Amino acid sequence: MAATLLNIYTEPAKTRWPELGTRPAFDSSSLEVAVKSILEEVKEAGDAAVQKFNAQFDGNNAADFLVPATKIAASEQLIAGELRAAILLAKNNIERFHTAQKEPVIKLETAPGVFCWRESVGIESVGLYIPGGTAPLFSTLLMLAIPALIAGCNNIVVCTPAQKNGEVHPAILYTAKVLGLEKLYAIGGVQAIAAMSYGTTSVPRVSKIFGPGNQYVTCAKQIVSQQGTAIDMPAGPSELAVYADESCIPAFVAADLLSQAEHGKDSQVVLVASNPGIVTDVEMALQAQIATLPRGDIARAAMEYSRAVVIADPHTAFDFLNDYAPEHLIIASENAAGLSRFVVNAGSVFIGNYSPESAGDYASGTNHTLPTNGYAKMYSGVSVDSFVKKITFQELTGNGLQTIGKAVETMAAAEGLEAHKNAVTLRLKYLDNGN
Amino acid sequence: MAATLLNIYTEPAKTRWPELGTRPAFDSSSLEVAVKSILEEVKEAGDAAVQKFNAQFDGNNAADFLVPATKIAASEQLIAGELRAAILLAKNNIERFHTAQKEPVIKLETAPGVFCWRESVGIESVGLYIPGGTAPLFSTLLMLAIPALIAGCNNIVVCTPAQKNGEVHPAILYTAKVLGLEKLYAIGGVQAIAAMSYGTTSVPRVSKIFGPGNQYVTCAKQIVSQQGTAIDMPAGPSELAVYADESCIPAFVAADLLSQAEHGKDSQVVLVASNPGIVTDVEMALQAQIATLPRGDIARAAMEYSRAVVIADPHTAFDFLNDYAPEHLIIASENAAGLSRFVVNAGSVFIGNYSPESAGDYASGTNHTLPTNGYAKMYSGVSVDSFVKKITFQELTGNGLQTIGKAVETMAAAEGLEAHKNAVTLRLKYLDNGN
Repeated sequence: MAATLLNIYTEPAKTRWPELGTRPAFDSSSLEVAVKSILEEVKEAGDAAVQKFNAQFDGNNAADFLVPATKIAASEQLIAGELRAAILLAKNNIERFHTAQKEPVIKLETAPGVFCWRESVGIESVGLYIPGGTAPLFSTLLMLAIPALIAGCNNIVVCTPAQKNGEVHPAILYTAKVLGLEKLYAIGGVQAIAAMSYGTTSVPRVSKIFGPGNQYVTCAKQIVSQQGTAIDMPAGPSELAVYADESCIPAFVAADLLSQAEHGKDSQVVLVASNPGIVTDVEMALQAQIATLPRGDIARAAMEYSRAVVIADPHTAFDFLNDYAPEHLIIASENAAGLSRFVVNAGSVFIGNYSPESAGDYASGTNHTLPTNGYAKMYSGVSVDSFVKKITFQELTGNGLQTIGKAVETMAAAEGLEAHKNAVTLRLKYLDNGN
Repeated sequence: MAATLLNIYTEPAKTRWPELGTRPAFDSSSLEVAVKSILEEVKEAGDAAVQKFNAQFDGNNAADFLVPATKIAASEQLIAGELRAAILLAKNNIERFHTAQKEPVIKLETAPGVFCWRESVGIESVGLYIPGGTAPLFSTLLMLAIPALIAGCNNIVVCTPAQKNGEVHPAILYTAKVLGLEKLYAIGGVQAIAAMSYGTTSVPRVSKIFGPGNQYVTCAKQIVSQQGTAIDMPAGPSELAVYADESCIPAFVAADLLSQAEHGKDSQVVLVASNPGIVTDVEMALQAQIATLPRGDIARAAMEYSRAVVIADPHTAFDFLNDYAPEHLIIASENAAGLSRFVVNAGSVFIGNYSPESAGDYASGTNHTLPTNGYAKMYSGVSVDSFVKKITFQELTGNGLQTIGKAVETMAAAEGLEAHKNAVTLRLKYLDNGN
């Protein structure tokens, strides 16, 4: 008899929750030496080092990394009309969702004559890393470039590894084309992070780097983030938690769990069910579905670390889920909308039977770059916010300074900062003298 | 003859800008060993280690770190009515400005039957570090706790060192009182960062730590940020740039530069003036004002690294300033509002003659926790955003999934992710069967 795919825990005590929510500890320190040496070499030798590592890791010997505009323009011919239409549909929805994130400028008069506001200004130079290894993630290019464009970033640099044939995947080229991106470089892995972080003769230096990647890329992003380049967020393996009650459709739940499990052997899959029968039904559906999957072996490996937790009380179940803080949370219940009000910690929430994670991964409009590894407790997914800085402005009239000046003087003096006080005192005297 | 306080650079070539914008490199690696050992000891020994380091560094031997509610309640008696009024005025303005940052929930129908929105949810546990060394920074407590309260953070932990008399400064106690903060701990420095990051028996563990500090605190925040605790932003010495043209009032400019310079010997002060005469006038005013300052020695030391850059063309001047990306930028000109439209990189901008930095430091309503060290290119100052995560939600109707399902299937297949596709296919079949 085949072992079950789900590892079942019934009504675990709260003291066991941290253990059940533990992600596999990944110690990047073993990679650090190798990654640092690549970073250093690119910092020193620039394009020559990029070329060397491109050859070594991707078999790409080209000395020119910039993808010619003609290749981007011609990409339309290389992919099926159906895929082009899908990309355009996704683009449209992602644009709608992210355009609504633009903040209006609200000029407040906090006190008479004291005007304060903030304005969102696009980060001038951003770098997007698009993995190309096991899959050409053109969806990630949509998810990162669209908010960057809406934010008004002037300089959007994209790096992605060439395929074995030396070319960037046509779906990535086509996505760049429809987005109007021109700075697309065939550079992969750590050397891409290095090139964007330090700049080379051919690759512009950027202020912030976005995008997923393998453990080497993640480690490189972490290192450059200590050296003055910002990054989108700390990364870990992708995760999905599904809450399912009696009204769920077990085959849907199984399909969703597998869509997560196929990502990688380290993918995290958690099912929280309101009774044991649901787990049994989902298990049966999993067994049936996994057999037909091309990436079934990966999914099977990931399922070894799966957790199916039975918790009858929905309040307790959501306490558990908030404690786990999943990247993706599907609520498979006819009462999903009501239950969604219990969510405190999650990256993205999928409500009801017709909201699979795949919808948000590709085309509903929400972003798929989300916090993993429990970081949903304090990080948001990528949005237009991630591509802007919000600058505060203030303008005080003479009258405004007279309104709050005394308070500033008093507070500055109490903090022992007389020059702070003096900057106000001088002006108040000037105003008193009728100048 | 006394040397001038300002170091003058006239119309520097663009190639020299990076050098003129360089901050003093501070290498924290020399502190790392000492800081790591304190962090480790608190992680292992908890409260006992906190007590040991409190005694060692602050001369505070107390075994109970939590400030008793009675002391917070009694603080009102210990500070002058004038200061109480100033704190209340500042609180009111800061609340107004930050309340306006709350985001309304916008439920979008990105495609027929596809509903997407995001909700801002307060980070459950946050830690605020309030330095107490050279000055009791009660203003920083206002700046951090008010957005945390507006964000709806449930658990706000505040750590601040005790003074030499073993007590927390009354102005900090009073600020805690008016904000209704109860978890105030007399813990300083690295041991405070450790206690909040790892948790101890008496100090709750938090998800994100905010607040300024000396080089040891900064180093500790950087280390714990690699271990799973988020931090507000990377920190460096405080900075001010002033743009001044013919219409400025040199005495005001000088007072503003000194208000920055008195912060610390490593404070950064930059003046960009449209002609050399302005620099001469500001220099004279500086000489006159610095003589009377209690922290004149600190200011004088900071001024050694000051830069006065003469650039006649305002466009070029603002290019220089955007390249420098100052934490604070004062525009001292009658045309300040017009010139403010050139600002791309800055933390907080002060427009016109009656908007000294002190106003924003204390009482106008804007936040004073801002990006330094050039990070204004990609980081925002602290705001309500810093205390929430924005969770995305989506709910598709059956019809909604039929609208976008085909696109999802096509894109998933193109990325080689069949289980992602299957999660949609299964549902579409179910819908077709009229279930």
